[in-house]
Amino acid sequence: MCDEDVPADDQLRRSFTSLWEQLAPIGRAPSGGYRRFSWTPADLELREWFTAQAAARGMSCERDRNGNLWAWDGEPGPGAVVTGSHLDSVPDGGAFDGPLGVVSGFLAVDLLRARGVVRSRPLAVVDFADEEGARFGVACIGSKLLTGALDPDRARSLRDEDGTTLAEAMQRAGADPALLGRDDAALARIGTFVELHVEQGRGLVDTGQPVGVATAIWPHGRWRLSFRGEANHAGTTRLADRHDPALPFAATVLAARELAARAGAVATVGRVQVTPNGTNAVPSLVEAWLDARAPDEATLSAVVEQVTSAADRAAGEHGVRLDVVAESATPVVGFDSALQDRLARVLREPPRLPTGAGHDAGILAEAVPTAMLFVRNPTGVSHSPAEHAETDDCVAGVEALAAVLADLVRG
Amino acid sequence: MCDEDVPADDQLRRSFTSLWEQLAPIGRAPSGGYRRFSWTPADLELREWFTAQAAARGMSCERDRNGNLWAWDGEPGPGAVVTGSHLDSVPDGGAFDGPLGVVSGFLAVDLLRARGVVRSRPLAVVDFADEEGARFGVACIGSKLLTGALDPDRARSLRDEDGTTLAEAMQRAGADPALLGRDDAALARIGTFVELHVEQGRGLVDTGQPVGVATAIWPHGRWRLSFRGEANHAGTTRLADRHDPALPFAATVLAARELAARAGAVATVGRVQVTPNGTNAVPSLVEAWLDARAPDEATLSAVVEQVTSAADRAAGEHGVRLDVVAESATPVVGFDSALQDRLARVLREPPRLPTGAGHDAGILAEAVPTAMLFVRNPTGVSHSPAEHAETDDCVAGVEALAAVLADLVRG
Repeated sequence: MCDEDVPADDQLRRSFTSLWEQLAPIGRAPSGGYRRFSWTPADLELREWFTAQAAARGMSCERDRNGNLWAWDGEPGPGAVVTGSHLDSVPDGGAFDGPLGVVSGFLAVDLLRARGVVRSRPLAVVDFADEEGARFGVACIGSKLLTGALDPDRARSLRDEDGTTLAEAMQRAGADPALLGRDDAALARIGTFVELHVEQGRGLVDTGQPVGVATAIWPHGRWRLSFRGEANHAGTTRLADRHDPALPFAATVLAARELAARAGAVATVGRVQVTPNGTNAVPSLVEAWLDARAPDEATLSAVVEQVTSAADRAAGEHGVRLDVVAESATPVVGFDSALQDRLARVLREPPRLPTGAGHDAGILAEAVPTAMLFVRNPTGVSHSPAEHAETDDCVAGVEALAAVLADLVRG
Repeated sequence: MCDEDVPADDQLRRSFTSLWEQLAPIGRAPSGGYRRFSWTPADLELREWFTAQAAARGMSCERDRNGNLWAWDGEPGPGAVVTGSHLDSVPDGGAFDGPLGVVSGFLAVDLLRARGVVRSRPLAVVDFADEEGARFGVACIGSKLLTGALDPDRARSLRDEDGTTLAEAMQRAGADPALLGRDDAALARIGTFVELHVEQGRGLVDTGQPVGVATAIWPHGRWRLSFRGEANHAGTTRLADRHDPALPFAATVLAARELAARAGAVATVGRVQVTPNGTNAVPSLVEAWLDARAPDEATLSAVVEQVTSAADRAAGEHGVRLDVVAESATPVVGFDSALQDRLARVLREPPRLPTGAGHDAGILAEAVPTAMLFVRNPTGVSHSPAEHAETDDCVAGVEALAAVLADLVRG
């Protein structure tokens, strides 16, 4: 049968599945999760996919100075309605975090065209570079450079685990790192930004709704704790003679959980590097990264202060030196309340909810009216191969995004 | 002035310094320590150095089926007196652990010749392959294969962090892994084995003596603890919904220290691998290696049992699964008491002391009469770039070894 005979919902479901299957093999790890790190071959393949999607729709496609990709429906220009997200992943991340927003953006463009929506503004789909920060340790690099929130000199000199700088990685991929930095011309074109994203908790599960509107992003940050002790032989060094940095590190992992729980915040130590990391060697150095988030900035500061104090005390007990570096700190982001209300009206009052996760939308919100839509995550699991969303919910997300974009491009 | 005018002690000191300086640059890491892992380019360079030392002395040199190098003074044959140690290192290890025994072996051969000692037995210097187990996770691979304590099929399939098997690594280095296994012909030649080694604790410091005789090696082992939780987003997953394996892991690090201290044993967690090891990801897996040692086997078993029980309880509290694998367990080694007494007589009753460190001598002791000499370590620091021994003490070690070997090759 030809497409005209297929119910609209089934057509959209088919289109969604088709795009989803194109992305499925790219950057897939043996775990079943994804390792789509910026400027790697997997990332370049994703960028080619984006460019091909734009071309297939007759949308003009450009890479801006900061490596973000833009697909334009209509002439690029001021007041544009922009949607999109990112295509990169955390190590062994899920399929939905990021790509769902980009795929939904292209499908929403298709729906608007199929429904004959008359635009009075240009519409764009964007793929922001390196949202997860998995390779160079700083999140939202593309959107932060765009808005000026990240210094281009600092960005260029960020190094990955192999010692490759972002500048070198961009050059190898054929991009010019000399152009990095706040891009007023690109920013001036954005009238409104709406990012659709899979929810990363169970907020929508509790409401029974497939789509919600974001209210705010919790303030959050990353702190690197370096515990410096003294390397030694694990068999022959008396316990009393040791300066073992693994001990205050372990105490800190437990303290972080306890103190965050008491404060209604979250704190995680999910990344650790031990030197020399030998079975029969007392380590000389344990580096650990604390990720902490809280409903408000005062709570976040208090929790981080308490955790680093506990780490300091534990380090002192073992003759270990502690250095703490704040690698990033992002203040609370409250999304534009007029825009939230407008989305809520269009979508007939869906649930509204905050999130503990950072997003490019959180960076854009500092510069332009910005909103987010969340799609239900049945388990709440994210940053994991097991991250999932039902196809019905993804289709509902595309419909909601299309309704919101239709409203915005008309106005 | 020519060598004849130099006091004997100064000549030996010069010879020692000269050999030591030849080894100093090989496999040196930016830390100032060494990364001399088996069958890597650094290891091959050390093997070439060994071969050149044998050649310079007119000693025949052979690599046995298990990759151990032998330099022979006299025709290889039964009843031989063998000395030596290993040239590989732990990650960022010190210069002395291993190489001091090999260098001292060659210098002792020189002294015996200079002093006209008449041998009634052949004498050999040996370099055992991969004593530290830094690359393939099993210690004393060369000596264990020689005596049959390590199954050759298991050895061939051991993998390094990059997934390379020992068999592949040997093949790339031009050695035939098909030959691995108990080597009765090589074993039958060894009459006595004496290993000189830098002390790895402060036992000799307390006695004020530069050289001591080993009594025993504490029983010791390595256990791999795998804590399997659930990967998740560090920002959006409620603490109550998490199965974070970092928490029971941390509790285990602290428990191991506490329980070992109570038992008069030592326990160390110096090696950790976190998956996926991302700052904003609750880990799915934390693998940790427990190194534990005690004066006797009952105490060791009790400590390991208590630590794994504590780990199990902590894992249960967090909905995390724990698997424990004993990767190696070495029973107590008491060195041959008649041989100990003979060495003590020759050296005029030096201090006798046990050690918590495993050695090739501990493996050989199961097959042939074996003894060890320790050279004073002023700080007790080992498995660290800061590992040190005074040159005067190293020279005293060579003299002691030469005296012992002279006594043994005559008898």
